[in-house]
Amino acid sequence: MAKVYLNKKIAPRIANGHPWIFSNEIANIEGDHNPGDIVDVYYADKSFCGQGYINPKSQITVRLLTRTHDTIDETFFYNKILNAWKYRQRLGYIENCRLIFGESDDLPALIIDKFNDYFVIQTMSLGIERWKPAIISSLNKIFAPKGIYERNDVPVRELEGMEQIKGFLSDPFDTKIIINENGLQFEVDIENGQKTGFFLDQHDNRRAIAPVVKDADVLGAFTYTGTFEIHAAHYGAKSVLGLDISENAVAQANRNAQLNKLDHIVKFEAINAFDCLKNWSKEGKLFDVVMLDPPAFTKNRAHIQKAVSGYKEINLRGMKLIRNGGFLVSSSCTNLVSPDLFLQTIEAAAHDAKKRIRQVTFQPQAADHPILPGIENTHYLKFFIAEITDK
Amino acid sequence: MAKVYLNKKIAPRIANGHPWIFSNEIANIEGDHNPGDIVDVYYADKSFCGQGYINPKSQITVRLLTRTHDTIDETFFYNKILNAWKYRQRLGYIENCRLIFGESDDLPALIIDKFNDYFVIQTMSLGIERWKPAIISSLNKIFAPKGIYERNDVPVRELEGMEQIKGFLSDPFDTKIIINENGLQFEVDIENGQKTGFFLDQHDNRRAIAPVVKDADVLGAFTYTGTFEIHAAHYGAKSVLGLDISENAVAQANRNAQLNKLDHIVKFEAINAFDCLKNWSKEGKLFDVVMLDPPAFTKNRAHIQKAVSGYKEINLRGMKLIRNGGFLVSSSCTNLVSPDLFLQTIEAAAHDAKKRIRQVTFQPQAADHPILPGIENTHYLKFFIAEITDK
Repeated sequence: MAKVYLNKKIAPRIANGHPWIFSNEIANIEGDHNPGDIVDVYYADKSFCGQGYINPKSQITVRLLTRTHDTIDETFFYNKILNAWKYRQRLGYIENCRLIFGESDDLPALIIDKFNDYFVIQTMSLGIERWKPAIISSLNKIFAPKGIYERNDVPVRELEGMEQIKGFLSDPFDTKIIINENGLQFEVDIENGQKTGFFLDQHDNRRAIAPVVKDADVLGAFTYTGTFEIHAAHYGAKSVLGLDISENAVAQANRNAQLNKLDHIVKFEAINAFDCLKNWSKEGKLFDVVMLDPPAFTKNRAHIQKAVSGYKEINLRGMKLIRNGGFLVSSSCTNLVSPDLFLQTIEAAAHDAKKRIRQVTFQPQAADHPILPGIENTHYLKFFIAEITDK
Repeated sequence: MAKVYLNKKIAPRIANGHPWIFSNEIANIEGDHNPGDIVDVYYADKSFCGQGYINPKSQITVRLLTRTHDTIDETFFYNKILNAWKYRQRLGYIENCRLIFGESDDLPALIIDKFNDYFVIQTMSLGIERWKPAIISSLNKIFAPKGIYERNDVPVRELEGMEQIKGFLSDPFDTKIIINENGLQFEVDIENGQKTGFFLDQHDNRRAIAPVVKDADVLGAFTYTGTFEIHAAHYGAKSVLGLDISENAVAQANRNAQLNKLDHIVKFEAINAFDCLKNWSKEGKLFDVVMLDPPAFTKNRAHIQKAVSGYKEINLRGMKLIRNGGFLVSSSCTNLVSPDLFLQTIEAAAHDAKKRIRQVTFQPQAADHPILPGIENTHYLKFFIAEITDK
């Protein structure tokens, strides 16, 4: 096994538990290795740091898998997945969960979502790609799944020198499945839905809207397949209107509404939500609750300010559409905008909209996507509910 | 009514909604006024700012009650209290709640806790003290309470030139009452308990421990009347030991355990929790879950570092007492230590204890103590749960 020696001057991050080693933190490499191989990593003083997978093509040259000398083999992955499953079970995430959340489960660049008996996998580094057979075998042993699918149609794979692919990792199955969440049913399009097909990260947050949507006229913008909107109807909203630019998403949202027999309350429209927020606030339309769950406005650190402007704009417009004493439900899913920055942005929007905000809820993604304090990118979702009153 | 004119240079805080006006922000005062009177406040450009109560004895000379010209009379207070009650009802805080949380309910320096049919009041400025009759009358109209009690035995009143007092504001009643919380019963000592007799701010957080305490050996430090510990037993802990230095608190905690028929699982000991944490971690004692809910280590901005050291010490000791893969449940109730600083302190403790932390929950006080983003002191409670593993 090749040996990677770190520079004397590396970020304290690595010693503190962060698994990423950038190319400029490496002094030299001894021994032959192919991209994707497991390598031993040593500090500059020759003391052992850990083992990880190497990919010279990637900006993140090594991703540490362990700080131990444990043999990296199928059993290693089996144990990691089993432990992750025990953790989710302990915390009550059983039917559906993010089973593996990459770095937070010591399996960098691996995502596994469990939708009841079906599993969707993303292997986003060359190192973890190599272990796909071990991962599939482990899933088969632990869960005896009805199906496994890979959604590796993600551009980040190209940074690792891999192609984008998707397809079955088990016998083929009908990739439109139905899952249960909070007493409701949702269609998940494993093959063609966004990311892995369903945003499990909001499953607790969807429950959090219950008190504020009761008896309310609710507007949801960027609804995707309507999960928040259908929850709103389920929790007693008087009316719900969901907006999304995608015809496909709206069609699926409508099917979800019908599936839950809530289509008399919740309606969806395929329309540009930005334009609606802008025009309707000028027209003086009013709702009791406005819910905003936009896609990440940026994935690039250089464009954080653009993302902040986007959040400010939609939150400002959203607030203007809220009746005095109503509620804003606002999400942000990019880790590039920190919780503090997101909150400051909403405060700035409130200031400009001449509104006063009183916080009901401010929380991250659900705990089956565990946050490692000190590893910032593991805290990516911000979910905020506030009462909005006129100043 | 006297008119208070602000300096040209005031903190943007005031225009942004913060109700405190410090003496150095006042240019001049026109007209006669007595301490505690309502005054009109104007910006330096003579535009109207709001109305508030004045107390030249206090560092906070004026506390703004409203930004409107509304008449401040009994009806004003009645409406504020009614609105606050509607807000709690909407959010599901009905049987027990912090009915009025001072600044967050536009009633600076007023605290009202509702324990079912009983109400405990704190009037912590001279201005609000004057309106006590209006407040009592409003409570009688809205709730027809079985009893109202004032717990004005708080040193902060002396800064306002008032004496510390406590006593009935209704016909006398038995001040040891029983309240229901999360399916459990707790004795509340309205007359002699800490603060208003019970810490309602943790009522949601107490539920949050359910998944991590199941089947666990649990240690609770600084337990006061044992609420977290009794919840742990209720949620399936194998054993629970609660520590508090106060014999009285332990006696009440034991009564609470008996009341819920959980005294076979949960035991309390009157002992210095600091010493226990220190000695037991040296002795190598181990628990599955350690819960820390210490009193505020400081109320003084000058001693924040002391508070941080205190938090670091108990969290470090606490983590050392946790079996690999167990959980830490850690609270901080002083607004002087920000959420970020608290988290950094726990990270530093983990570093020194050679432990790794994985966040399960990080949330503030319950939403019946609403946070006004931008008014820092309204966010005071931090509640953290994390998995603790060996590094």
